[in-house]
Amino acid sequence: MHGALPSLLSEQLAQRFGARFCVAASVCLAHGRDESSYPPQPPSAVLYPETTAEVAEIVRLCRAHRVPLIPYGAGTSLEGHLLAVRGGVSLDLSRMNRILALRPEDLDVTVEAGVTRKQLNAALRGTGLFFPIDPGADATLGGMAATRASGTHAVRYGTMREAVINATVVLADGRTIKTASRAKKSAAGYDLTRLFIGSEGTLGIITELTLRLHPLPEAIASAVVAFPSIEAAVETVIETIQMGVPVARIELLDALSIHAINRYSKTQLREAPTLFFELHGSPTTVQEQTQALRTLADAHEGADFAWADRPEDRSRLWQARHDAYFACLNLRPNARALTTDVCVPISRLAACIRETQRDLEESGLMAPLLGHVGDGNFHLLLLVSPDDEAELTRARALASRLAQRAVRMEGTCTGEHGVGLGKRQYLYEEFGADAMALMRTLKIALDPDEILNPGKILPDFP
Amino acid sequence: MHGALPSLLSEQLAQRFGARFCVAASVCLAHGRDESSYPPQPPSAVLYPETTAEVAEIVRLCRAHRVPLIPYGAGTSLEGHLLAVRGGVSLDLSRMNRILALRPEDLDVTVEAGVTRKQLNAALRGTGLFFPIDPGADATLGGMAATRASGTHAVRYGTMREAVINATVVLADGRTIKTASRAKKSAAGYDLTRLFIGSEGTLGIITELTLRLHPLPEAIASAVVAFPSIEAAVETVIETIQMGVPVARIELLDALSIHAINRYSKTQLREAPTLFFELHGSPTTVQEQTQALRTLADAHEGADFAWADRPEDRSRLWQARHDAYFACLNLRPNARALTTDVCVPISRLAACIRETQRDLEESGLMAPLLGHVGDGNFHLLLLVSPDDEAELTRARALASRLAQRAVRMEGTCTGEHGVGLGKRQYLYEEFGADAMALMRTLKIALDPDEILNPGKILPDFP
Repeated sequence: MHGALPSLLSEQLAQRFGARFCVAASVCLAHGRDESSYPPQPPSAVLYPETTAEVAEIVRLCRAHRVPLIPYGAGTSLEGHLLAVRGGVSLDLSRMNRILALRPEDLDVTVEAGVTRKQLNAALRGTGLFFPIDPGADATLGGMAATRASGTHAVRYGTMREAVINATVVLADGRTIKTASRAKKSAAGYDLTRLFIGSEGTLGIITELTLRLHPLPEAIASAVVAFPSIEAAVETVIETIQMGVPVARIELLDALSIHAINRYSKTQLREAPTLFFELHGSPTTVQEQTQALRTLADAHEGADFAWADRPEDRSRLWQARHDAYFACLNLRPNARALTTDVCVPISRLAACIRETQRDLEESGLMAPLLGHVGDGNFHLLLLVSPDDEAELTRARALASRLAQRAVRMEGTCTGEHGVGLGKRQYLYEEFGADAMALMRTLKIALDPDEILNPGKILPDFP
Repeated sequence: MHGALPSLLSEQLAQRFGARFCVAASVCLAHGRDESSYPPQPPSAVLYPETTAEVAEIVRLCRAHRVPLIPYGAGTSLEGHLLAVRGGVSLDLSRMNRILALRPEDLDVTVEAGVTRKQLNAALRGTGLFFPIDPGADATLGGMAATRASGTHAVRYGTMREAVINATVVLADGRTIKTASRAKKSAAGYDLTRLFIGSEGTLGIITELTLRLHPLPEAIASAVVAFPSIEAAVETVIETIQMGVPVARIELLDALSIHAINRYSKTQLREAPTLFFELHGSPTTVQEQTQALRTLADAHEGADFAWADRPEDRSRLWQARHDAYFACLNLRPNARALTTDVCVPISRLAACIRETQRDLEESGLMAPLLGHVGDGNFHLLLLVSPDDEAELTRARALASRLAQRAVRMEGTCTGEHGVGLGKRQYLYEEFGADAMALMRTLKIALDPDEILNPGKILPDFP
């Protein structure tokens, strides 16, 4: 726990923002924790700006006092991004939730950072368009941009890296920039947009975003297929990707995850390694892709090819997939989940999962495995008792071995959750010392006083 | 013309690189010009490194003497990227032309920066894969990455921004980094890859690239459609994009461009505003898309829907499209082309072209119009006599108005050619002073001595 803000700053903020400047312990606590297994670290105060200009004002005030600022969206981080490890102010952007301009004719939309992905998709109803990026949680688009989020649709529609056309960003010195024009492509200068996507609030505060939208597919088909082994399921995925079948989603869940889902979501899925598919296109193309997938799955003894053709069945299916995190948590009373997030080249996916399963068996830990395997990305939810230090240590060691295994296989320690606190230790192995020094150079150039979400992404330097 | 290198540096380089260090005037001249209308500015010497380690060695030597370094690929720039405006050494990467690792199972390939796109596609023969990015010229992949190139396929497959998985980059201090792992997606840290894509050699020297490949489509169809007016053609494009038809290419050529092509490539196309289409997919999907396009084109009185189904007809068609630049140059003896490269949101495309045509008519200049209109990107080739100062001035003024018009329409002054020398003056209007200051901050942080391709991208500061 860090102390109160400098009293002059508190006075300035209270005077300027009134009730939107809040130091109540309960509010601070709620802003100092996320969905990770980290113990909360509350900020000293919470501010609720309503405009980019207000964010800029706050940045200037806090900077004058060298007080850290932590942007806060929906609080759904899994890596401790929000924790006030050096105290400071949580900047809750939830009131910046306006859709500023919807342009169906350009397939784009400009939103404030506090708009959530579900809110956006609700606003798109009737336009024939949708925003595909779907990390499961109803995160804010600002948070998703800041962590380079992706999720189930990324295999077809890309990640936040591809989805963001431009961003409005408040820099550490209080200046506000727009990173790019609204052109679909551009060769004009440095890629300022991508500089901030994935920077986790450490280089600037994203306050607005222009996002690429996609036409709703004419036809959608979802299917669930059970396999005799994880290997068989993974081989089916690998062949699907290598053949270029443009699946919209292709998700792997192991038998334990399916068991958890059945219990939590009252489904009756066969408790075996399972793929959830979704196909988007015209009725004919969806039918073609269906046939291609069926052939591939058959060759690996995929069974129970169950189709969810009605929208309500599909929604139920994907809701169950999205609730898997909570379903898995429920497998063990009072457990917390230590979540891993590796992503490897698809050719290494089978080996990475195989070695990880062996490691898991030897560890005696309980950990459902599931993931966006079309991208080579999968998660373990290591269910640990918060009171069992020895178990936590074993779980951390396993997570560490998994991250290192992925890096050895030319992959990454985080496919979509971001670095936050939890993955900092692996970046040296993943990038090497010189690339990490370059990241540090960028941080110092953009935030010399280290007031923007300090302690995140970059490992502590000796 | 700048003077010779410092004699100590010359000695060091000559001793270390022998005949691969060259100061012959003819060689320097060839490395000091590109395909733009700028008069040549030769470097003081040319070096032919063969490995990343050699590039790093050269950077360290040149840095010690504060001598500029200009990476050189195939010399196909249209914006003066290669001109040695402050003298120094041209780093010709053409000997770094090895394909280091081809991994069909991961749909990726690692190449040295001097590999050209045609060389890569030749090496991919038999794998069922191809590299789609196609700026027309047979540029090197390093040069394409450095300028964030795109071209005819970008509407479907994206630009170099999306194509590059990771890069090996030599920094200004001689250190070498790899920007990312080989994972298809990652949320690990700052996007170092995108930091260098489009940085035009001003932040680091790209020596290797890992690139995303795509499965060759099962079926391809190309078509040529003539329209009664540019408006009719453009409206067809806009509706195609808004309906989400996944065209692989959709190119506009005005009547003058078609005339030039007929003369140069001995084709017999109707000399009217024309769209070149290409569709990729399964035979059924291509047929569906064909039908959709035909309906859209019919509604705008598109005529002469001519299909090129045989591979040799398609090659001839696209070769003609690619040769359009030279075909247009040939319209006027001894002319040079001042090339514009705006890109606007698709909803503004018709207005932007309309206003530009009016401007062009009033100017009395000769300028074929053509472009990658599916992305909102089009070019004018302003044909000017190199000896007619007044005409050149009028052409520059028109190009300037066009760039400003695009920026006013929320577009960019360069969709794919890059900034180089020619577009620097528009960046302030496009990005604003604060974003430009941030670009300057990045440049200073990464290249404090300004030895990496100095004078490019960033406007000269007062």
